[in-house]
Amino acid sequence: MVKIGYNGYMSQVLLPLFKMLKKAQEILALQSCIQRDTALEGAAAAIDKGRRAILSANAADLERARQGGMKEALLDRLLLNDKRIDSIVAGIQSVIKLEDPLGRIRSEWQTPTGLLIKEITVPLGVAAIIYESRPNVTADAAALAYKAGCGILLRGSSAALESNRALSAAFKAGLAAAGGVGDAAALAASGDRGEVDEILAARGYIDVVLPRGGHDLIRRVVENARVPVIETGEGNCHIYVEESADINMAADIIENAKSQKPGACNALETLLVHRKALPFLMPVLASRFAGKVELRCDEASKNAIRDCAGLVLKDAVEEDWETEYLDYILAVKTVDSLDEAVEHINRYGTRHSEAIITADLKAAEEFCRRVDAACVYVNASTRFTDGGEFGFGAELGISTQKFHARGPMGLAALTTIKYHISGQGQVRA
Amino acid sequence: MVKIGYNGYMSQVLLPLFKMLKKAQEILALQSCIQRDTALEGAAAAIDKGRRAILSANAADLERARQGGMKEALLDRLLLNDKRIDSIVAGIQSVIKLEDPLGRIRSEWQTPTGLLIKEITVPLGVAAIIYESRPNVTADAAALAYKAGCGILLRGSSAALESNRALSAAFKAGLAAAGGVGDAAALAASGDRGEVDEILAARGYIDVVLPRGGHDLIRRVVENARVPVIETGEGNCHIYVEESADINMAADIIENAKSQKPGACNALETLLVHRKALPFLMPVLASRFAGKVELRCDEASKNAIRDCAGLVLKDAVEEDWETEYLDYILAVKTVDSLDEAVEHINRYGTRHSEAIITADLKAAEEFCRRVDAACVYVNASTRFTDGGEFGFGAELGISTQKFHARGPMGLAALTTIKYHISGQGQVRA
Repeated sequence: MVKIGYNGYMSQVLLPLFKMLKKAQEILALQSCIQRDTALEGAAAAIDKGRRAILSANAADLERARQGGMKEALLDRLLLNDKRIDSIVAGIQSVIKLEDPLGRIRSEWQTPTGLLIKEITVPLGVAAIIYESRPNVTADAAALAYKAGCGILLRGSSAALESNRALSAAFKAGLAAAGGVGDAAALAASGDRGEVDEILAARGYIDVVLPRGGHDLIRRVVENARVPVIETGEGNCHIYVEESADINMAADIIENAKSQKPGACNALETLLVHRKALPFLMPVLASRFAGKVELRCDEASKNAIRDCAGLVLKDAVEEDWETEYLDYILAVKTVDSLDEAVEHINRYGTRHSEAIITADLKAAEEFCRRVDAACVYVNASTRFTDGGEFGFGAELGISTQKFHARGPMGLAALTTIKYHISGQGQVRA
Repeated sequence: MVKIGYNGYMSQVLLPLFKMLKKAQEILALQSCIQRDTALEGAAAAIDKGRRAILSANAADLERARQGGMKEALLDRLLLNDKRIDSIVAGIQSVIKLEDPLGRIRSEWQTPTGLLIKEITVPLGVAAIIYESRPNVTADAAALAYKAGCGILLRGSSAALESNRALSAAFKAGLAAAGGVGDAAALAASGDRGEVDEILAARGYIDVVLPRGGHDLIRRVVENARVPVIETGEGNCHIYVEESADINMAADIIENAKSQKPGACNALETLLVHRKALPFLMPVLASRFAGKVELRCDEASKNAIRDCAGLVLKDAVEEDWETEYLDYILAVKTVDSLDEAVEHINRYGTRHSEAIITADLKAAEEFCRRVDAACVYVNASTRFTDGGEFGFGAELGISTQKFHARGPMGLAALTTIKYHISGQGQVRA
């Protein structure tokens, strides 16, 4: 054990990495936007040109994962190919195109004693991201952090270790070759679980930890962290079909939100239907979901379905309202009012993405105002909650926490503010 | 143990209070600014008129504290009198005068698919503040929270229990009498230490915990919280006297920052002096601090002091650089460059308030840019880091964390954002 910074104790395996990141971030923070963008161009080029090494490292990860019996869906998340490398490179390019988030004067005023106070955006510092599986997160997070003047510690899953090594090596070499600060990004690559505990205890070195992954990972981080955490991702998302809704629009949106990518955190999990909309909506949904999506219905919504060949239909129980299935399963509940819909969502939702389908402006406004979530939708699919879809270039994850970062986290999530106060000798009376 | 919300377990003593606050906050969030301000007028009037009961409750606290052997300085923090009640009432009035922080559209844009996205400020939710001693925090925090549409759980010290009971009872009754939501503020008043643990575990009910007090309280909260925390207050603050500094201005500012209120978190703890400024500054400081402030100097700064009657002068050791004295003690270190000053501050500082005294614009700018702190000062006392001095009306504390809330926390610290997304049936491709 060694005393670090001003108030922490930790074991020492990652300490040299923490020190390197902190030092590198202090240098990076002084670079202009042009310098940061030039370095990112270098990183994009290095990944582009280094794709052979990256793909071969990825092949080794895939082979190991297959031998370990990884499921096909997870193998697909792990997989890199030329198209996906192209998309990683394009991701870095789109981060380069974003405006500089730093040095913006958010407010400025003079106090009665003549002090001039400026509120200025600055890099948050050193972030650590702990993530699972998909290697593209490595490049997305590193690019966003670099553009925001932040150091970043990348802690990917052991399954993607070789891919992440190759990607981050190319990224760092590309930064350095273009005159940038290669040490501002670092991969925690021992694969040892103890690394996570070190990160969570790194007060004075890590300014924020971003867990991005399943329930267990997020829970472990929240319960053990002594550094600030921004939680991401758990999404028990709802769509409420109000009685005035256009039924075809509702069915299209529900089908998209549930089945276009059920494993995503912004996918629909529980459908709330106004009693009066049941006889119109449920038969349409039943025929669309037959053979595709299992329905877990309450009494009234179940009764609104005529026999439908191939539909798997079960009775919903209390647990269904609490569950993020991440699967081809949809819970359906009948409500008698917007009030009841809002209450259900605020009770069971995870503050992520919630939608109303309606033709009634007042209902839309009330829903948006009363539902407590990062993203509230009117007549659109919850699947749009995504940094790319929002135009953020890339994302670090979806914050379900209520700080400066809420919803999709792009560049702004990696900045904070600093007050500059200028005086002419003022002292406090 | 009972399962609560979407993801938490806790014992049940405070559960009814949590539920009441959550419900009340949902109602409060729908009220207009005029409604919130009217209710706060009621609260201010109720405290004004109820001062006899409040002062008599405070007298009971003081009597108990005296019998328990509380020190004079702490007794003074606990003390209420007519003047202090006036100042509490004035504090609420100044919160009323602040602009509504809610419903502001911070950004608005349309995506290529035609979705209209608005980023709107909303109440953060239910905050819990855990604080020590001073009863004025009770009213300040309750007023700020109410204006920001937030519920607030007030967990004061057991020493101030009767004062806080009387103050919060008047505040709540005043809100209710003026048509407001009295239940949006609640005092955790059993005095039991277990209450704090319950608050720290209240996921799904408490959106943020604000510890305001000494090192041990803050450490306990950080190490145990499973709800988000904004740390406050620890301030190991520095002033750097650059070689071009006006020595009299420097001495005035140093004297103010160190001795006007040494127990405050924004008080000066370590002075950094450029070697060339030593022979001019140190004799002046020595004569100002003789009989008042103990100096703990390194070799060079000590040698720059001629004999000065009544001055307590010791040798500084490593521990002095790390210590927030909160007392009439000042550590002094000699540096040879701005670089060395910045490195010292970024190593030992607590990211709170840091100042440079200089006549050199370039040095001022470099200091402000490179020092990592919520508030960086040029030619002014660090003592100005305060919600009142900043014009925030009141404050919840000084955030030393790097989120949306950094530095003095006023209304804005109790808001977050929400994305409203309006479509015409868009689904994700």
